[in-house]
This record gives sequence, C-alpha cells and structure tokens, in this order.
Amino acid sequence: MIIVMSQSATKEQIDNVEKKLSDLGFKTHPIFGEIKTIIGAIGDKRLLNLHSISLMPGVENLVPIMKPFKLASRELKQVPTIVEVGDVKIGGPEVIVIAGPCAIEDEQTFVDTAIKVKAAGAKILRGGAFKPRTSPYAFQGLEEDGLKIMASAREVTGLPLVTEVMDTRDVELIASYADIIQIGARNMQNFRLLREVGMTKKAILLKRGLSATIEEWLMAAEYIMAEGNLNIILCERGIRTFETATRNTIDLSAIPVVKEVSHLPIIVDPSHATGTWKYVNALSKGAIATGADGLIIEVHSDPANALCDGPQSLRPTNFSQLIKELEPVANAVGRKM
Amino acid sequence: MIIVMSQSATKEQIDNVEKKLSDLGFKTHPIFGEIKTIIGAIGDKRLLNLHSISLMPGVENLVPIMKPFKLASRELKQVPTIVEVGDVKIGGPEVIVIAGPCAIEDEQTFVDTAIKVKAAGAKILRGGAFKPRTSPYAFQGLEEDGLKIMASAREVTGLPLVTEVMDTRDVELIASYADIIQIGARNMQNFRLLREVGMTKKAILLKRGLSATIEEWLMAAEYIMAEGNLNIILCERGIRTFETATRNTIDLSAIPVVKEVSHLPIIVDPSHATGTWKYVNALSKGAIATGADGLIIEVHSDPANALCDGPQSLRPTNFSQLIKELEPVANAVGRKM
Amino acid sequence: MIIVMSQSATKEQIDNVEKKLSDLGFKTHPIFGEIKTIIGAIGDKRLLNLHSISLMPGVENLVPIMKPFKLASRELKQVPTIVEVGDVKIGGPEVIVIAGPCAIEDEQTFVDTAIKVKAAGAKILRGGAFKPRTSPYAFQGLEEDGLKIMASAREVTGLPLVTEVMDTRDVELIASYADIIQIGARNMQNFRLLREVGMTKKAILLKRGLSATIEEWLMAAEYIMAEGNLNIILCERGIRTFETATRNTIDLSAIPVVKEVSHLPIIVDPSHATGTWKYVNALSKGAIATGADGLIIEVHSDPANALCDGPQSLRPTNFSQLIKELEPVANAVGRKM
Amino acid sequence: MIIVMSQSATKEQIDNVEKKLSDLGFKTHPIFGEIKTIIGAIGDKRLLNLHSISLMPGVENLVPIMKPFKLASRELKQVPTIVEVGDVKIGGPEVIVIAGPCAIEDEQTFVDTAIKVKAAGAKILRGGAFKPRTSPYAFQGLEEDGLKIMASAREVTGLPLVTEVMDTRDVELIASYADIIQIGARNMQNFRLLREVGMTKKAILLKRGLSATIEEWLMAAEYIMAEGNLNIILCERGIRTFETATRNTIDLSAIPVVKEVSHLPIIVDPSHATGTWKYVNALSKGAIATGADGLIIEVHSDPANALCDGPQSLRPTNFSQLIKELEPVANAVGRKM
Repeated sequence: MIIVMSQSATKEQIDNVEKKLSDLGFKTHPIFGEIKTIIGAIGDKRLLNLHSISLMPGVENLVPIMKPFKLASRELKQVPTIVEVGDVKIGGPEVIVIAGPCAIEDEQTFVDTAIKVKAAGAKILRGGAFKPRTSPYAFQGLEEDGLKIMASAREVTGLPLVTEVMDTRDVELIASYADIIQIGARNMQNFRLLREVGMTKKAILLKRGLSATIEEWLMAAEYIMAEGNLNIILCERGIRTFETATRNTIDLSAIPVVKEVSHLPIIVDPSHATGTWKYVNALSKGAIATGADGLIIEVHSDPANALCDGPQSLRPTNFSQLIKELEPVANAVGRKM
Repeated sequence: MIIVMSQSATKEQIDNVEKKLSDLGFKTHPIFGEIKTIIGAIGDKRLLNLHSISLMPGVENLVPIMKPFKLASRELKQVPTIVEVGDVKIGGPEVIVIAGPCAIEDEQTFVDTAIKVKAAGAKILRGGAFKPRTSPYAFQGLEEDGLKIMASAREVTGLPLVTEVMDTRDVELIASYADIIQIGARNMQNFRLLREVGMTKKAILLKRGLSATIEEWLMAAEYIMAEGNLNIILCERGIRTFETATRNTIDLSAIPVVKEVSHLPIIVDPSHATGTWKYVNALSKGAIATGADGLIIEVHSDPANALCDGPQSLRPTNFSQLIKELEPVANAVGRKM
Repeated sequence: MIIVMSQSATKEQIDNVEKKLSDLGFKTHPIFGEIKTIIGAIGDKRLLNLHSISLMPGVENLVPIMKPFKLASRELKQVPTIVEVGDVKIGGPEVIVIAGPCAIEDEQTFVDTAIKVKAAGAKILRGGAFKPRTSPYAFQGLEEDGLKIMASAREVTGLPLVTEVMDTRDVELIASYADIIQIGARNMQNFRLLREVGMTKKAILLKRGLSATIEEWLMAAEYIMAEGNLNIILCERGIRTFETATRNTIDLSAIPVVKEVSHLPIIVDPSHATGTWKYVNALSKGAIATGADGLIIEVHSDPANALCDGPQSLRPTNFSQLIKELEPVANAVGRKM
Repeated sequence: MIIVMSQSATKEQIDNVEKKLSDLGFKTHPIFGEIKTIIGAIGDKRLLNLHSISLMPGVENLVPIMKPFKLASRELKQVPTIVEVGDVKIGGPEVIVIAGPCAIEDEQTFVDTAIKVKAAGAKILRGGAFKPRTSPYAFQGLEEDGLKIMASAREVTGLPLVTEVMDTRDVELIASYADIIQIGARNMQNFRLLREVGMTKKAILLKRGLSATIEEWLMAAEYIMAEGNLNIILCERGIRTFETATRNTIDLSAIPVVKEVSHLPIIVDPSHATGTWKYVNALSKGAIATGADGLIIEVHSDPANALCDGPQSLRPTNFSQLIKELEPVANAVGRKM
C-alpha cells in the first residue's frame, strides 16, 4: 500500500502516519519527493480497515497495490478451474452451450423445448422457476412446481439443470433439484445469498451485476469461495450504459480481462445482453471467438406466447442453426463443441 | 399502447395484429401514414404480457403510453404522502435529518453519538447492524446485538430508529426493533425482500439502486405497496457513472422528477453519494434547496477508527455546524427544520 | 408522430393541438382512450421543429415514429454500401485490416512499420500526423511533415493511407495526401468539420464518439452525406462506461445494430477500445466473428519507445500472428481475408 | 510516480526499470514487499512519455502521484480566480446569472428578451449565432447576422455577451463581437479550438463534455491556459448516464470537487442539464446552495415557437420569479445576487 501525503503535510504529520502504520504491523518506507512525500507500507493486510489512515491529517489518499480478491485470483491459482457438472466440463477445451426458456410455463412445453435444444447440441438445460420481474404484476414463476417440471425434463433428456435462486430461504429447496444454482444479475451483491449458496456443494452460475465492475464481480465470487464452494462459473450478461439500441451493452472485453486476473471459467448470455433475438446469433459467435468458455441462450418453442422475455428468445430452429454456425467459429479459435 | 408496423408490413400482417389485439380485449385504431402504419390500442392492460404482439410479423415496435407503476404514481394520488414515524413527519413542511454511524460498533460509542446527533438537531437515528460489504473479509455488523444497542439508544434519546435488512429471514427480527426498515441500494431489486417488508406495517426507507432508473425505483416501491404497505420514503444515494472523483454521482434532478410523477417523499444521502465527508456539507445544502424532504447523514464520533465508511462520516461537531447552516437554506425554500 | 395528451387535458386543449398540427401540414387522427387521449399525426416532417407541439397546454410528450436519419438508413438503401479506396473494398466479402502506429515519429520507423504490416496482411496504412491529446504537454504530431512521411510509405508499399483531421482549416491539406480522412471520436459531433469533409470526395472513417448513441453516430454520418459524400466507413472504438479494467468498453453489439438500420460498412478499433495490447488479439477475433467488415489496429515496431499510445500497440510479430489467427475466424463466418 | 512490479518480476527486470528511470532523470526508491516490489520515482516530469516504463518486462502498472494539470490547479494558485467581464465579476461573492435564448432568431425578439432578462436580474446575455445541432436538417443559426443582433442588444441593455464558437475559422470574428466566448460540451476536447481561443484575451466559458471526467475538463482548461489565457469560467451542464428521465444527469458534486482541486470559478447550466423547463427552478436553487458561482439559463419570450431547445426554456415571467426565489438561497449560503 502507498500513502500519498498532501503537498502541505508537516514533518509531524508524516511521522504520525508512519507510527500508526507501524502500530498496525506494517513496515514503512517514506520517499521524500520534491513536492510530495509518499510512504510505502509493506504487509498484506486485506483484513485491516485502512481508512483510518486515510483520515489522518496530511494524508491525501491511499493507493492499494494488491487486488482485493484472493481465492478467485490467478495469482493464487494459475491453472484454469474446470467446473464439472455430471459429465459436462466448463472451462476446458469444449465450448458448452446452456439453453432453455426464460420461465417454465408448463411441463409439455418445457420438456418439448428440452428435447429440441438437446438435439441441437445444448449440454445443459436452463429454466426459471422463481423469476425476478421488474413489475409486481408480471408472472413470477411456478416455484416448486417449476422445479418438478425441470426434474422431469432432466429425466427425459439427461441434461443437467441450472435455475435461479432469489431468496436465502429457497436455497435448500433449489439445491435439491438443480445441478447448477444461478445467482442473477440483480442479486450479485446480495451477500447473504452468496454466503448461503457458498455453503452448498453445487456449482454456481454467477451473473455479473448490471453496474458491477469486474473487480466487484470477482469479489462476489470471493464471497461464495470464502464459504468453501469453489465451483463458480462467471456469466457476462451485459452492463448498463447510456446506449438504448440494445437492452444492455454486452462487454466482451470482460472475457480476456477475467482470463488474465482469475482462474474461473466465464460464459456469456447474449439473450439478456442484447434483449433482442435478432442479435443473438452474431454476438454468440463474437463471444466464442473472443474466448468465452460457453454460452447461455434463451430458447422458447413459441416466443410470441412466452410468459417472459419472448423478444429475446430464439425458436428451436434458429437455435439449431446457430449451433451449426458456431462450430466452425469454435474450431477457428482452437475449441471444440 | 401504440403498435408501430414496419415499412414493409403487409395488409394481412396489419389485420392479424388488429385481430390479436382485439382478442386480448383492446379497441384498435389503425392510422395509415405515408410510409408506416401505426395501430392505437385502447385499454389499460398493465397485467398483460404484450410482447406477444411485438413478435408478430410486420411489427416494428411497441410504444407504451401509460406508466408501469400505479400505486406510486401521482396520477392515482395527487396529494403528497406524509410518512409518520412516531411524532416525526416525513414529506411535510419540515425537513427531517436522519443521522448516525454506518455500523454499530459498541454501545457506548453508539449511545454517545446518538445523544450528540439529537442535540445537533437530528430527528431519527440510523445505524447498521447487518452490513452489506463488498469484501467478505470486512466487518459484517453486530447483527441482533447491534439491534439491542440501537434500542438502548432510542430509550436514552427518544429518537426513532432506521436500520437495514438484507435477508428475508431477518425481516421479522428487524421489524421488532426498528421504526423504519431500510432497503439498501444493492437490494433495490431483491423482489422477495421487497414483498416481505411490504407485509409489515413499518415505514420503509427505499434506497435507489446504483444503476436504477427512476422508473425502476418507483416499480420497486410498487412491489412494496402491492403488499399493502404504503409508508415508503425514497432515498437518492448517488448513481454509478464514469466519473471517479466521487464514489457515486449524486442525481439531485431525481428530486423534481420524483415530485412530478409520484406522491412519495424523497430524501437524499450525501454521505454515500459522494463517499467523502468534505463534500457532504455542500451537497446537503444543494439537496434541501432542490426540494428534498430530508437527509440521511453518516456521523461518527471518531471517523478515523470507524469500522466502516469512516472517510464519508462527519464528526459530531461538523454535523452540528452543518445543521446550523442548513436552517437558512431550508427557510429560503419555504421549509422548516 | 404520436402526441400523448396528459390525463387532465381538456377537450379544448386537444382541439388546439389538432389545429396546430393541421396548420403545420399534418393529417391528424385522435384516439380517445379510457384514461388518456393520443393524437396520431401523419406526414414526414423531419425538418420541422416540433417541440412547439410539446409545449402546448395539455401535451404530455411526443413519440417520433420515423428515424431521424435518412441517407444513412437501410430504409432508403437496402443494398450494403461498399466503400472503394483504390483496389480495396470495405463492406464486401473481404475483411479489411488497417494498421500502423498511433503517431508518425520519423520516416525510417514509419516506412519500416508500413513494410512489415503490409507483409503481414494489412491492406491500408494508418498513422497520425495531427494528434488529439488529452494533455497540452504531450506530443502533438509532426503535422505536414508527418503527411509527407505517410506519402513516402505509400510509395514504397502501395498501401492507401488513412489519417485524422482535427481542424476545418486542415481538411484541404490532409485531403491532398490521404486516401481516407479520419474523424476522431472527440470530433464526432464537430459539425463544421463533418460538413467540411462532406464537401471532399475522399472516403471518411467516422469514429463513434465516447458517449455517442448509435443513432447520434448515424446522424453524424448524415451530416457528411447531406453534403454529398456517401463514402463513409463507421468505426466502433469503445464507449465510456463505469468499468475501469479497460480504457473504454468495446460495444460489439453495435455491429448487428448498425447492419440492421444502416447500409454503411462498420469496422472495429480494438486498440483504442481496450487500451491494452494484451486484449487486442481476443477482441479482434470477436469483432470479426460478430460481423465487422474490418479492423483498425495500432502497430509499432518499438511500443516501449512510442511517443503515443504505446501500451495499446502490437509489435509487428504479434500483429503478423494475429492476422494468421484471424483468417480461420473470418472463414468461419463466411468472409475472406 | 510509483511503478508496481508484478509478483513474478525478476531481480534483473527490477534493475532494468530502475536504470531506465534513472536515465530519464528520476531518483528511484525501490521497496521490496513480501509479495511485490514497488519503485518510487521522484521528479515532476509531466512532459515525459512514461508509458515506455509501463511496457518494460515485469512492470504491472504505473501509479501517478501528481495531478496532470498544473495552471488550473489549486496547488499552484490557492486564491480563487475572479473572471472580470466589464463590471461583472464571476467567482466573487456575487452569484451571477447569465440568461437568454438558445438561438438568436430575429432582432426584435432577441432585444425584447434581453431587456426582460436584464430587468429580472440577469448580468450577462447569452445567445447562439452558430448552433451545434444533432441533425443537419435542424436550424443552424444566423451566424454573423446573429452576432450583429447580439451587439444591438448589448447597446440597448449594456449587458456583456456570451456566444459559442464551433470552428477555429470563426474565433476572430466571434471575438470581435463577444465578451465571453463559449466552448460547447461537444467541443470540450476540440484541442485546436481550445488553443485558438487560448490565444485571444477574451474570457472563456468552458462547458463540460457529456462524458468528460472532471480531470479531463480541467485538462481542457489547461490547454487554453497554456496559450496564456487564464480567464476561464467552468460550466457544469449535465453528464450522460443511463437515466432517461432527464436529458442529462446534472452533476452538482462537480462544484465542491472543482473548488477543492482548482481555483477557477464554476457555474451551472440547469437548462441543458435537465432538458425540461419544469426542473430548472429546483436545480437552480440546488446549484447555488451547493456553491456554484453562477447560472446560465435559457429564456425565450415564446418557447413554443423557439427554433431551438424550446422545451428547456423559461418564459421571462418564470425567469423573473426564479431570480426572486434564488436571492434568499444565495443569501442563505453567504452570497449576494
């Protein structure tokens, strides 16, 4: 950590800061510049509450040197993490596609869609039983009935299941049905929920918050990992910007950034990122070519009558076509499908 | 609602859309322009899932005419809501200041701070017992012990209490201690938590999410109101932008916008909005002059040793000075303190 | 255009709005809803200043139906535009790579880099003679001497040249050297400069502004086209968001959006978008797979000693490697290199 | 400056960085931490191109200690700058209001508005002769005829004039009419234009760019000051964010931030910031209470028929009322009007 003293800091103020740092267990190294003095403080004290320093008289600001996350960092673990869910490996040479409808509406439609996305090449099945909706008057999901329908579809297709949890009280229930538990974008900093899923043994799909920096996203992963669950799949799903032509702005640069600073696998959700099924094909290819470990795509057998997010859902035929077009892209960057 | 048909829409496609709208219970009014056709659809169908229309062949887009919130709207209720907490009235002619430390650390410090902020003019006491922290390694709050300390401070000072809830499982516990329950910025779209506090009779302090539009914020209020709890105080606390000179960007224009479209009272949190105690004085005055119904300000008797958010906390003397300087500003815009 | 009347609008106010619209040459179609009245106004009046309507008593807001750009729109011209610069065609089946250093520093280095990027596969040479720099104390470019050096490099390599213009006074000079004139991100709404380059016959590389919506970007193209110059290449170069891990946030979703609403070709600048050479390879592949018509990439023979933007420049060997890796990606989406 | 070496940096790499810094004229101070090494480099080398260091093997990143602006900084000049325009002093104890229409349309309307805003209390007259418009089909201003009309209004009222320059070729012309030259938001980083107005002796009203950080804004001021013109008035006019309820998001926290790091005066433009005349009153009060040195407000005698920005213009009666309401607010924070 570096402490930058203000131009007008007195000798006494500098001495006081050095003493305080020393009391906290740091070794200090002052550097007296022509205009300002800085103090280097040696010691990895992630747990310390260092703002006490920033408020001392004469201190201008603090510059941290170490990243705030540890378990999620590539500095700690240099080999990429591969999350295994049944036979499916996320983060390895194979690009994994997760597919299914936004919300589960009824058993027949869901099982039908599940069969179709499997035939097209999906490896994991998604579906929403508990739905976060902006309006209290919108369809909120079938809850446990939805989970039961998902389990039927797994029996029929053999595909592992991913579904979202919104409430700490539901974690146990959802963990008893799902293979992967999803933390939605709006709950990325629901810290109690993060801790709760960290106490399960399930793989966690952690979506990036609408306005979360990559560092905050990795700190959310750190919350889960700090409870002992290391099976985390990051999911970029678009961030909020000033642009209104798409529902969100997909941030594909998050892929190489995450790969550089973390060992966790990262997939992309082009359906939520764009909000429009017409753009899903192009950005799915873009995500894979950029280095994503997989995709999560909304597919509905009848988007015009979907109870949720119809405009961004692909029909099974379009999804099947997309998978065909994705394979050469994956191969072009040395991946398999 | 207006349906805009694309330039190339056929007569048959237009007919189909009209028929579908009619089946859904709308009266339709097509307008044939020189280049495009639009269809006006009459009927207040907030509950309908209208994207089925947007996916019909020939449809370019849908333009909603009605606002999505109802209970929170000024169209429904034209008289401003005054939230009463004990003797304190929020939303009336008096500007209300809420003050206290970010986190409760120990009884003596908290009660001491409570006495001081009351003496300075605060009308409500804030304090955090359950703390949302970006890092899992940071202090997470004293939990129920913190609530007990808050209750002691209320006994000593008579000030009503506001504290944050982060987990649906804690709502009952917190409601048994607090006079106002706070929903933090990161939980503004934690819809299950919104419903849960909507089922209590307590006043709710609803902070705006970091990247929430004003419309989404009012939809979050609508969630609470839809459960029967109409005692909501909105709180602007800064939004996330590209600017890094302040922790967040305080959006004071939210005040006149909220006053125009809603009847709910709105207060401002300059401490979290700026992240720096030095800017709190100026922006507190700015908020009151712009028309805010109150402020919530972090005050700590020893910011340099605070376990949380020290850099944005005022010392009691600075707080006392601020209140003195605020009074003429409140008077200048026709309010009392 | 749709005029939404407020809930409390009187019959007389509605009549007045209809009369005013009629006076302006519109045919009007009022629709009386249960709660609000709307008025459809037929007529393509892009040139009219319609806010006069929005200020009439009883009017809540105006909803435009037509896009504000015309010459740049796909509604006007459905065949994609191919911009030809010498033998190079931008917007056709071939993916075009533009390469070169940020700034021209001296003849030997520049010609040397030009030879190397040509050998690697670049089709157009970039270089800055007039440089927009955030600091007045940073290197500002060699100006006309730089243009002469560029011309020498064109003689040696046969590659066409693209370089930026920053001042209306320099348009003629730069047009006498360059094959493509670049409008930089900071000048995207320098309307006088847009008009001035619109009066030349040169191809224009129009970079997206840091905070420009796609619609504003196309309106900037419209400014150039309105002067008679239709040879425009759009260039996505990252937008400004809250994320700080990259210099800007690359918005690859702009590619399918632009392709849908406009006929103009679009290329991507991953060097400026990310600000870090390490991320250029991944995002170049992502851009091509998403459907970009080309790339513009900073290459410098000695980035550590570059006078400008060294951290985002590739070395010629890395650039050569990138081109090799791009070819299978281009092929995978049906393009050539 | 601090150089942070990566965890895996070798002794030789550290030595090389030290040698390079030493060659560039810095004194170096390495600090060997438990995990990483950092190197403090002493010397104020604003002019040096330091990224060469950032690209050396083993270097993780560079942390600047000094601010990049100098002439605009409070470190250089601690007394606030007061810009004098005729008898008007901006930055002193008096709050200054600038008012007038967006664009000049005809002499009678403009002179009439000028007389009314003067009577209400405006001290400076604004008007646009050269207008930056998003659409090439919108009214572009009366150009020199507009300047002549402004000069007539000055003769009648005695009010000094502020008007915008958009093109380096017009600086001389505009300087011959105007008392204050405005640089608009879209030209804040039009560096050639900044230099050109820096060579005049006129006061400069420098608007903040739509997506400019406060630091970039002060660097734009530095460009002007580096040419010898120190008479700069900063103007906050809203920044671009995700919120759509207002045209831009007014950033009043810029006021205390600018006051802390710079000696330049700062005023606020609530008309452009909000885009809606209804919000101008509230935010004008907010700006003054926060500490702004003045306001610039759009006033038009007939907003419904204004050729530009009517929706955000006040009528003279509303403006007059606003000034009356502002006075007690100014007094409440120790200012005069």
